[in-house]
Amino acid sequence: MNILEQTVKRIRPLDSGAVEKACQRQAMLTKPRGSLGLLEDISIKLAGIQASPFPAIHHKVIITMAADHGVVSEGISLYPQEVTRQMVLNFLNGGAAIDVLARQIDARLVIVDMGVIGGFPHTPGLICRMIDFGTQNMCLGPAMTTQQVLACLETGIEIVEAEIERGLDIIGTGDMGIGNTTAASAIIATLTGEPVSKVTGRGTGIDDQQLALKIRVIQKALQVNQPDPGDAIDVLAKVGGFEIGGLAGLMLAGAAHRIPVVIDGFISGAAALIATRICPAATDYLIASHLSAENGHSICLNSMGLKPLLNLNMRLGEGTGSALGIFLVESAANILTQMATFESANVTDITSTTCERQ
Amino acid sequence: MNILEQTVKRIRPLDSGAVEKACQRQAMLTKPRGSLGLLEDISIKLAGIQASPFPAIHHKVIITMAADHGVVSEGISLYPQEVTRQMVLNFLNGGAAIDVLARQIDARLVIVDMGVIGGFPHTPGLICRMIDFGTQNMCLGPAMTTQQVLACLETGIEIVEAEIERGLDIIGTGDMGIGNTTAASAIIATLTGEPVSKVTGRGTGIDDQQLALKIRVIQKALQVNQPDPGDAIDVLAKVGGFEIGGLAGLMLAGAAHRIPVVIDGFISGAAALIATRICPAATDYLIASHLSAENGHSICLNSMGLKPLLNLNMRLGEGTGSALGIFLVESAANILTQMATFESANVTDITSTTCERQ
Repeated sequence: MNILEQTVKRIRPLDSGAVEKACQRQAMLTKPRGSLGLLEDISIKLAGIQASPFPAIHHKVIITMAADHGVVSEGISLYPQEVTRQMVLNFLNGGAAIDVLARQIDARLVIVDMGVIGGFPHTPGLICRMIDFGTQNMCLGPAMTTQQVLACLETGIEIVEAEIERGLDIIGTGDMGIGNTTAASAIIATLTGEPVSKVTGRGTGIDDQQLALKIRVIQKALQVNQPDPGDAIDVLAKVGGFEIGGLAGLMLAGAAHRIPVVIDGFISGAAALIATRICPAATDYLIASHLSAENGHSICLNSMGLKPLLNLNMRLGEGTGSALGIFLVESAANILTQMATFESANVTDITSTTCERQ
Repeated sequence: MNILEQTVKRIRPLDSGAVEKACQRQAMLTKPRGSLGLLEDISIKLAGIQASPFPAIHHKVIITMAADHGVVSEGISLYPQEVTRQMVLNFLNGGAAIDVLARQIDARLVIVDMGVIGGFPHTPGLICRMIDFGTQNMCLGPAMTTQQVLACLETGIEIVEAEIERGLDIIGTGDMGIGNTTAASAIIATLTGEPVSKVTGRGTGIDDQQLALKIRVIQKALQVNQPDPGDAIDVLAKVGGFEIGGLAGLMLAGAAHRIPVVIDGFISGAAALIATRICPAATDYLIASHLSAENGHSICLNSMGLKPLLNLNMRLGEGTGSALGIFLVESAANILTQMATFESANVTDITSTTCERQ
């Protein structure tokens, strides 16, 4: 049994005992029942994930995976391909948006090169797990081989397992890769069955003409490759990307190790679709941070039954949505674990403490 | 000229030079234009408020004001009136939701007794500015005198000015007061002209029958008092509350001192309506943290042109929404002030740096 199979086999449902206890505790805390809305729901989910009615979040880690995409040669992106590499250097120098937000929430930021063209000399803080110098152009054939897909997924798993050694209570996902909204749209179209035009957006900010080209390019890639919607590995190989595969791997690893995974925007959404098609039970370990401004993200999240915490019209990626989401998940955990009960605070209660989830 | 008039006279528009500079800087930062959505908009507003393209948030203060309401004798609330006092003690002991969230964002929590029945012995951490032991029952006549209204507003102003001495870069508002959604609905109905039924919700969780009673009580109070929709002071006197007046005062003081005020949910929304009717220019200094689950909050925010950052189905008050909102405002400030530019990070830019607000 390979690492992927072993990981998937470890994934279990949420702990129903912890869920029940957390739900009962929420009803005893000094506030009207349900008055903290989604924070209460998230706290109960967290309890189920960590199998404890007192979920703890000490070590926060945002894992941002970068890779290049052969399909960029079709002219689907506004920014030149070298920006992927430049932005990884920006991450390492602390100047990118994700650096700023990771610092704000006191999260460890882990940058992974999954296959950036040009590569990097040995750089402190960068994990080099390059699969290849970018994927192949999916308009001409599969973006990667099945072997590469498995390498991506296993890399994601191995990175989570290495981070567990350093302390890991919650994972935020992030991505960087010029052209990767094209791959993500192709994955989402295939796995949800929606037309390409409904799940393709403007990425970094292309105009109407460029958007029409991007849609045609994705349609061509799907026609050339005929990915099998019943086989997520096949979809990832034919129209995916190295960072998307890596992210799917770390989601599966999070679920296997009972660690909540806060997913970022559109690219992470496509990775989550892959992960949850490989193992539907992994869905319970995912928390959607925000609704991206990118067209098709709501279709993607809805198809997994995930409800985003934020809707700030963001579309940057990198893990920026995850960072904000992790803050809210911490709020949820803090509420559940730190608030006084009606009894301990001598506050008159008027409701029963029966468990009643919203 | 009294304190209120002096404060209102100090309120100026946003600093257009700082707004322009912040907008230009956003376009130079290493991310596609507009890709951080509302965080970018908020950062530009902050620059205009602080009159600096590098807005700084060091001292965060949540001010939670508590008071009782005479209208509770009409049976409009689920919880008994003594819960106001019990919850203030819970705030002081650190066990309430707002304590948990204020700690999480490292904000100073300032609790103000504006008129809680029973009062408090001298208690460290509690600011006693009691106007009276609760308001009068607005179904029988005005909730308070005009003199009391002015005392509430000036108390809010004085508390902000005292906090400025201790360091104050951003204010979050909060409230506690059994029965105060009834007062807030009456204010919102009067000042927006909407029917009472459209702006009255379930408060702490009343059922259909109790909601019908609450609506009748508010309708009766409006009929008995005939508050003048063109005179916010009159509305506050007839159907308001001490904590609502205090919150309106601190919003005006924030605007006068160029300090952003992050407003909480339904009660703070009613206070913001009062403040912005007294001085429309104060609106630019307000940031709406979240859309409350309480019916009528969106009508209230829309009427001021404020767009909430969060929608988490919360309806607790206390400042819990403000705390989460302050975190997002800090994110916005950090993005604007800490990110690298395309030039400094050697990242290829493809857009012009013309200022273009969303």
